[in-house]
Amino acid sequence: MVNLPSYSKFEHILVKLEGGVLTILLNRAKERNTFTSSLLVELIEVFEWADRDDRVHVVIVTAEHTAAAYCSGFDISTGWDGLWNPESEKEGEHAHRDGGGQLTLAILACRKITIAAINGHAAGVGTTAMQLPFDFRLVWEGAKLTFPFVRRGIVPEAVSTYLLPKLIGLSRANSVLLTGSTISPSSPWISSLYHEIIPKREDVYPAAKALAQDLAENTSQVSIAYAKGLLHHPGDSAEENHLLDSRAIKLLGTSADAKEGVQAFFERRKPRFTDNLSKNSSPWFPWWRRVDVKHPKSKL
Amino acid sequence: MVNLPSYSKFEHILVKLEGGVLTILLNRAKERNTFTSSLLVELIEVFEWADRDDRVHVVIVTAEHTAAAYCSGFDISTGWDGLWNPESEKEGEHAHRDGGGQLTLAILACRKITIAAINGHAAGVGTTAMQLPFDFRLVWEGAKLTFPFVRRGIVPEAVSTYLLPKLIGLSRANSVLLTGSTISPSSPWISSLYHEIIPKREDVYPAAKALAQDLAENTSQVSIAYAKGLLHHPGDSAEENHLLDSRAIKLLGTSADAKEGVQAFFERRKPRFTDNLSKNSSPWFPWWRRVDVKHPKSKL
Amino acid sequence: MVNLPSYSKFEHILVKLEGGVLTILLNRAKERNTFTSSLLVELIEVFEWADRDDRVHVVIVTAEHTAAAYCSGFDISTGWDGLWNPESEKEGEHAHRDGGGQLTLAILACRKITIAAINGHAAGVGTTAMQLPFDFRLVWEGAKLTFPFVRRGIVPEAVSTYLLPKLIGLSRANSVLLTGSTISPSSPWISSLYHEIIPKREDVYPAAKALAQDLAENTSQVSIAYAKGLLHHPGDSAEENHLLDSRAIKLLGTSADAKEGVQAFFERRKPRFTDNLSKNSSPWFPWWRRVDVKHPKSKL
Repeated sequence: MVNLPSYSKFEHILVKLEGGVLTILLNRAKERNTFTSSLLVELIEVFEWADRDDRVHVVIVTAEHTAAAYCSGFDISTGWDGLWNPESEKEGEHAHRDGGGQLTLAILACRKITIAAINGHAAGVGTTAMQLPFDFRLVWEGAKLTFPFVRRGIVPEAVSTYLLPKLIGLSRANSVLLTGSTISPSSPWISSLYHEIIPKREDVYPAAKALAQDLAENTSQVSIAYAKGLLHHPGDSAEENHLLDSRAIKLLGTSADAKEGVQAFFERRKPRFTDNLSKNSSPWFPWWRRVDVKHPKSKL
Repeated sequence: MVNLPSYSKFEHILVKLEGGVLTILLNRAKERNTFTSSLLVELIEVFEWADRDDRVHVVIVTAEHTAAAYCSGFDISTGWDGLWNPESEKEGEHAHRDGGGQLTLAILACRKITIAAINGHAAGVGTTAMQLPFDFRLVWEGAKLTFPFVRRGIVPEAVSTYLLPKLIGLSRANSVLLTGSTISPSSPWISSLYHEIIPKREDVYPAAKALAQDLAENTSQVSIAYAKGLLHHPGDSAEENHLLDSRAIKLLGTSADAKEGVQAFFERRKPRFTDNLSKNSSPWFPWWRRVDVKHPKSKL
Repeated sequence: MVNLPSYSKFEHILVKLEGGVLTILLNRAKERNTFTSSLLVELIEVFEWADRDDRVHVVIVTAEHTAAAYCSGFDISTGWDGLWNPESEKEGEHAHRDGGGQLTLAILACRKITIAAINGHAAGVGTTAMQLPFDFRLVWEGAKLTFPFVRRGIVPEAVSTYLLPKLIGLSRANSVLLTGSTISPSSPWISSLYHEIIPKREDVYPAAKALAQDLAENTSQVSIAYAKGLLHHPGDSAEENHLLDSRAIKLLGTSADAKEGVQAFFERRKPRFTDNLSKNSSPWFPWWRRVDVKHPKSKL
């Protein structure tokens, strides 16, 4: 990688890289961390960087635990108009690209471990794009989670109608998305969405950081990328998945990381993985077609 | 809508429309609410009406809470013969259409909120078509739920092998459908199927009614229809879902209901939604192909 | 069936057929029941036999409850080399077929009820192929379950990235497979994988045997085969599933077993099912295409 990104250039987020863990702190505490187009642009950019930057093993998104909210949704103080883009407007309704969905796709495309550290209330896009595409969600027990869409005259967005049923099953997804409820993380409707539910707000980020550090130190970057690929693109049948994971295990099983993984196991010590995605990924990966669904006239 | 349906014409069900909530009461308490072809014909008809009638926001199916059962399955007192139709018989096995499945498809096709208020025991089709295609299931804690198929020499029917794994995952669906068990709603095998588990039989319908009224008053009919469409036809990938929900949010975000939704939110009052499916749905909806799988010689 | 298989010929497993229940006992207790190619060959063979042998209604896999483990994964004492096959090596990475995946496919292809009686610790392939493709998993509460893949530089194998999200949802599957954790069966990340969690090691196999005997005596072999087929190959939509289960119910509803099922129900006695897969299955079954993904040069 010739040019290392400068994570300090952002305005609506504060970004810090420590020992393989990239922390993204939402920097709009005074505005209850509402979502804006400018915030969105920065988040998408940092996830694209994190994907390419070999130094990054894990990405955490969080907020100040003293803020009024983790993310209180799109800023609709001037109605829905902030969502539309004059350029794509002219093209017709099919040209619109939902901003939350664009963020969701950027997070899903990131080949590193992603963690949402939800240390405050969340609503709207704060419960969808800011939670569902992550690998792990750690949440404050007291967080109020609001999925208001059907009570506002719109629909659940940001790929939530695809992701939530996959994550927790259609029965629970119906309860959450079709009632437009405000619920607690320990509600049986949603508790299985969370990797960990944590009593105190101030303990959520430290728990996420500890998980991130453990994974950054003890998992192989290439293993994680391929494992995430298999989980999100498993093939259409057991047989197809078998062909995919066979090829992946053959490719990775002969890697330096796999050799180190076994050796560390037998020496009962931490592994020192050195492979990275720039140098040690096969041309076969990704085995699925990445489809770019941006519209030429859309905002981002 | 020129001709309003007359919900009073039915024999095996009693139907009542109150403030946007259509309640369908099974009227075969003396026969343990067993299922018959005549009951089936009426249920399918009322769901087709409810789908088209703009006055209806929510449909509840329930039984008398003093009945021996919510629905004790197909009436097999004369064996399985009641299931077959002499006309389709002549055409061969491929011409048969399972009655429970036809009801399931009619409920799935209804664009309004659907609630099963299961205030008694349930068996066979009473646990499949009469529960699984609904958006929400409220159930009496003491209900005995029997999925007897593999213990009777037949298979789980009414689209249950498709719906149950989607609703609660394949692990639990296996436990329920392959053992042919009788279980309680609070069994870990099935509890995630239920929106609410209610201690007393007589409280199940009132709880369903309260949920229905809240949703009828506070959600947009068009939002619900599109949200259900997205949940049941989410597209084949995250990218495809993004294209679908983007278009839906553009269409609905510029509607009168969305405008009212924001305004009511800022005025901290209930919304007064006025859009309906007859007048305010886009020609783009539904975006999926509705396939009619009825057989010309099948019973219904 | 002309030639009855001899279940006594195996070396790495002990196989016993009692009243329709085939028990497969792993016979490598001294080696912590590690996985080897020879064990794999025997397991695949016995599942293929069990599928064809009409006497078998249920298959149980278990270990000695005094063994150090139920199955402690692939024997990697000499590194990963034991996984590769010199013949397929020459053909390139695409020719490799993961052994765990081949076992998974053999278990999935078995049309009888399959039960994993996990009465000890499990790791690697002991948590994937030896658990996920089974219909039911009964487990010792004290079992340590280790999914180490991403901490060893490889990927989760044996079709686990396809099966685990289907079984328990993607949210829990992520927590299990991307952390590389060692967890207990009662962890919320994985508890929904288990049909039953049993306090004492020595009680796991008896519980599995009791479940197996009940199902062997009281379910129809043909019903089970078709029900499993519907659960694993439900069709791509509710409509397609309706066409499949309609045809299945027409075929089975007119069978001797269905007649006996109703009669036994009304006489309040156990059914005496006599249909079997050799004689009483329709040419329509299986309705899906069985794809053979073995490579000509692969080990098995």
